[in-house]
Amino acid sequence: MKKEIDYTFDNVRVVMVNTTEPGNIGAAARAMKNMSLSHLYLVNPKGYPSATATARASGADDVLSNAVVCESLEEALQGVHLVIGASARQRNIKWRQMDVVDACSEIQKTTTLESQKVAVIFGTEKSGMTNEELDLCQILMTIPGNRDYFSLNVASAIQVFAYQYFILNGQGSFLNESCLFKKASFDELESFYTHFVQVLEHIEYFEDKRPKVLLMRRLRRFFTRAEPEKEEVAIFRGILRNIKPFKKP
Amino acid sequence: MKKEIDYTFDNVRVVMVNTTEPGNIGAAARAMKNMSLSHLYLVNPKGYPSATATARASGADDVLSNAVVCESLEEALQGVHLVIGASARQRNIKWRQMDVVDACSEIQKTTTLESQKVAVIFGTEKSGMTNEELDLCQILMTIPGNRDYFSLNVASAIQVFAYQYFILNGQGSFLNESCLFKKASFDELESFYTHFVQVLEHIEYFEDKRPKVLLMRRLRRFFTRAEPEKEEVAIFRGILRNIKPFKKP
Repeated sequence: MKKEIDYTFDNVRVVMVNTTEPGNIGAAARAMKNMSLSHLYLVNPKGYPSATATARASGADDVLSNAVVCESLEEALQGVHLVIGASARQRNIKWRQMDVVDACSEIQKTTTLESQKVAVIFGTEKSGMTNEELDLCQILMTIPGNRDYFSLNVASAIQVFAYQYFILNGQGSFLNESCLFKKASFDELESFYTHFVQVLEHIEYFEDKRPKVLLMRRLRRFFTRAEPEKEEVAIFRGILRNIKPFKKP
Repeated sequence: MKKEIDYTFDNVRVVMVNTTEPGNIGAAARAMKNMSLSHLYLVNPKGYPSATATARASGADDVLSNAVVCESLEEALQGVHLVIGASARQRNIKWRQMDVVDACSEIQKTTTLESQKVAVIFGTEKSGMTNEELDLCQILMTIPGNRDYFSLNVASAIQVFAYQYFILNGQGSFLNESCLFKKASFDELESFYTHFVQVLEHIEYFEDKRPKVLLMRRLRRFFTRAEPEKEEVAIFRGILRNIKPFKKP
């Protein structure tokens, strides 16, 4: 009997958002399986399932048929501890940015703790990820390339990432569990941000010169950059619970 | 005037042999251009030129239109100093074999002398290179991957090679100064911590179960890890200023 294929990287999921060409989904599944990745999440894929996707998947139709179709990016990120967004270009704002090599090291560190999961998000073909989607990311990952023409096909970008991750893991990890702390999950962080906004509203922090959307984006970026541990989030929530609304004189 | 695209790796040519799917030729052109490769040679391509190839090439149609179509592999190798053949599997015979990382180092060494050219050959989709084609190669290059399923699409293999070569040549980093922000100074952070302690005392946050020394150490560690920018410290101080002490009922 042929043994079941052994997928090595069970803690890493690839998330494709608003993919418009089903062929790219099939090609992504094939790229992933070649590099021992198997967890594919599809947020609002256009024209999927499709014969084109299956054809392009070649022998990776198992990755395709196990793909999880979601209605929102948030849904695809449930239970994830580190969220990485792939971006073709450097953004002029304050995400934590790194190239694919360093991003793969971060993933390796995070998944050293067996229960911790990582998502790597790839945006829609023409325009990549929106700012709202990027707001959910802790790290923005760029793939180095030609400065004068950078237009990687989305499945090619997934291929490069998957290859780089495979290669990195082949070179062994020095990290051991004892130096790692439990990171807060995506859900815990979202719930903390909701609480944070409520308190900032209570203390009447937002005003015209301090627009809520902008400020919250800055604060989220700050916290995601720090990659808070579970305990740290608990400390901040304790502080928030102690802040009572006050009346202006 | 927009400057001409500067292709860095002029000494390296990619040779595709007996390619049966024109779409793969287009995808290969795109993969190459993204990584600053531009010299594509096509030995007996099937159904080429083709609209499918052009569509898949996306903005890399210049690489495609400059592609050299040859009738034999020997013709495509004229003037080349080092011939490398890509192979999905280790061969049971005595070629010099190495993985894509080491092969890229070899290419780099060879092309240090400006006049020396290298060809990297990719065989037909279903079966790869024949033994006769491999006989023309000095090095056999393999791409690491899943042992239980290794079936890289030919354009994906070219993508991985092109990426690895780009990375090796150290054009890795995208980061430029405009993406860097002013970090808060030591003094600014100390002054922020002093303010933070005052506010936590005002809101009566510290108690026996929440010892001040320990909690402040944890909070400092959190902020240190985030490496706050000047602006972010200003935001937090703005929040602190809005928190007024309250009286317990």
